Amino acid sequence: MAEGERRRGGGRRPAAAAAQLVADLEPVVPDGFWAQDTAPVARALLSSAVVCFARTGFHATTTRDITAGVGLSPGALYVHFPSKEEVLFEIARTGHQRALEALQARADEGDARRLVRDLVAAHVTWHARHHTVARVCQYELAGLAPEHLDVVLDLRQRFAALMRSAVERGSREGVLDVPDVNHAVRAVLSLGVDLVRWYRLDGADTPEGLGDAYADLALRMLGARPDQP
Amino acid sequence: MAEGERRRGGGRRPAAAAAQLVADLEPVVPDGFWAQDTAPVARALLSSAVVCFARTGFHATTTRDITAGVGLSPGALYVHFPSKEEVLFEIARTGHQRALEALQARADEGDARRLVRDLVAAHVTWHARHHTVARVCQYELAGLAPEHLDVVLDLRQRFAALMRSAVERGSREGVLDVPDVNHAVRAVLSLGVDLVRWYRLDGADTPEGLGDAYADLALRMLGARPDQP
Repeated sequence: MAEGERRRGGGRRPAAAAAQLVADLEPVVPDGFWAQDTAPVARALLSSAVVCFARTGFHATTTRDITAGVGLSPGALYVHFPSKEEVLFEIARTGHQRALEALQARADEGDARRLVRDLVAAHVTWHARHHTVARVCQYELAGLAPEHLDVVLDLRQRFAALMRSAVERGSREGVLDVPDVNHAVRAVLSLGVDLVRWYRLDGADTPEGLGDAYADLALRMLGARPDQP
Repeated sequence: MAEGERRRGGGRRPAAAAAQLVADLEPVVPDGFWAQDTAPVARALLSSAVVCFARTGFHATTTRDITAGVGLSPGALYVHFPSKEEVLFEIARTGHQRALEALQARADEGDARRLVRDLVAAHVTWHARHHTVARVCQYELAGLAPEHLDVVLDLRQRFAALMRSAVERGSREGVLDVPDVNHAVRAVLSLGVDLVRWYRLDGADTPEGLGDAYADLALRMLGARPDQP
């Protein structure tokens, strides 16, 4: 994932191409992302692990890689986490929780068409804003222990259920036209998920701008004209 | 998005759930996928490496993992490939080439709306059919050496250019209504790419069935009614 760096350094490949493939891995974990009762050193370790897991994958990351990222000795990790897998779990759990919260914040809008639009925009904007954490949440779940995967899958189910319920309501109320809800919900969610592969905060779109654009595209997929009142 | 599988399986979190997250890794590399001048042992090593890279990532895979998959000693890899990175390159190069060929096979249709539909269907069907190879092609490119990444990025550019050119033509001819070609082409490609994360050949959709369904959704996104003549 060093291509962005490499190219910015003056290589011959154009910026957009590699950027698209290997989203930049700046540590975009904002203050307040991790649970409030997490010690500052533990938060720093989680943010370092996000970068490591996103760059080389969970299995290839050592505890030494994670601690080195914050200038600590390898043993320091075990003061805060029982294992590397627990670090991944804390990232995946918190990441999915925050994404769910972003959707829930929109979930009391009145009109079903507007609700679907807001949910898609929130979904896309969250994944763009937090693309490095989201990359770990999407691609590294196979590293979780079964009981931890259960917790994360439950959060994912609640997330998908929010979107599905809004689409079903819009369909029932006649403001959307959706021949197959399974395909439509999956496709809409893919718009947000896949951007973690290529999105960069210094690219052409702000998270909010991309959220707006993709929400319009999603409404079209769901059979609603975005320019209807 | 393992939700459907979990329910279908009836258990609390049967194998199917995790399997959907980490799409099935059956070696779905058909005979004839690799270059014809590749020796049979080298082909077997490539297919084994596809499974290893898809399961634990390029960086965490050892040459021993790859050779063990075909019952050979670790040194056997170097008879056929100079390095593990060259194995990844051969997979990525061939995978992108085959996907490009699948699109090119549709690229001489007459009507622009039909052409776009066929390209999306071919894109989605290819990624579903070859989801394990495609997973490596989408998620493991950061393991490539710069000169190899260049080759693969060129193939990706040609791939995206085919789709973009069809969308632009449809837009120019008035059969599509596309406010922003960049967003639209990215969104359409995401439908095919993201399915490598969750698709299983033994799931609800055949590769061709999913290709058809997503082609309809893509035409809606692009402002064409799929039921127009």
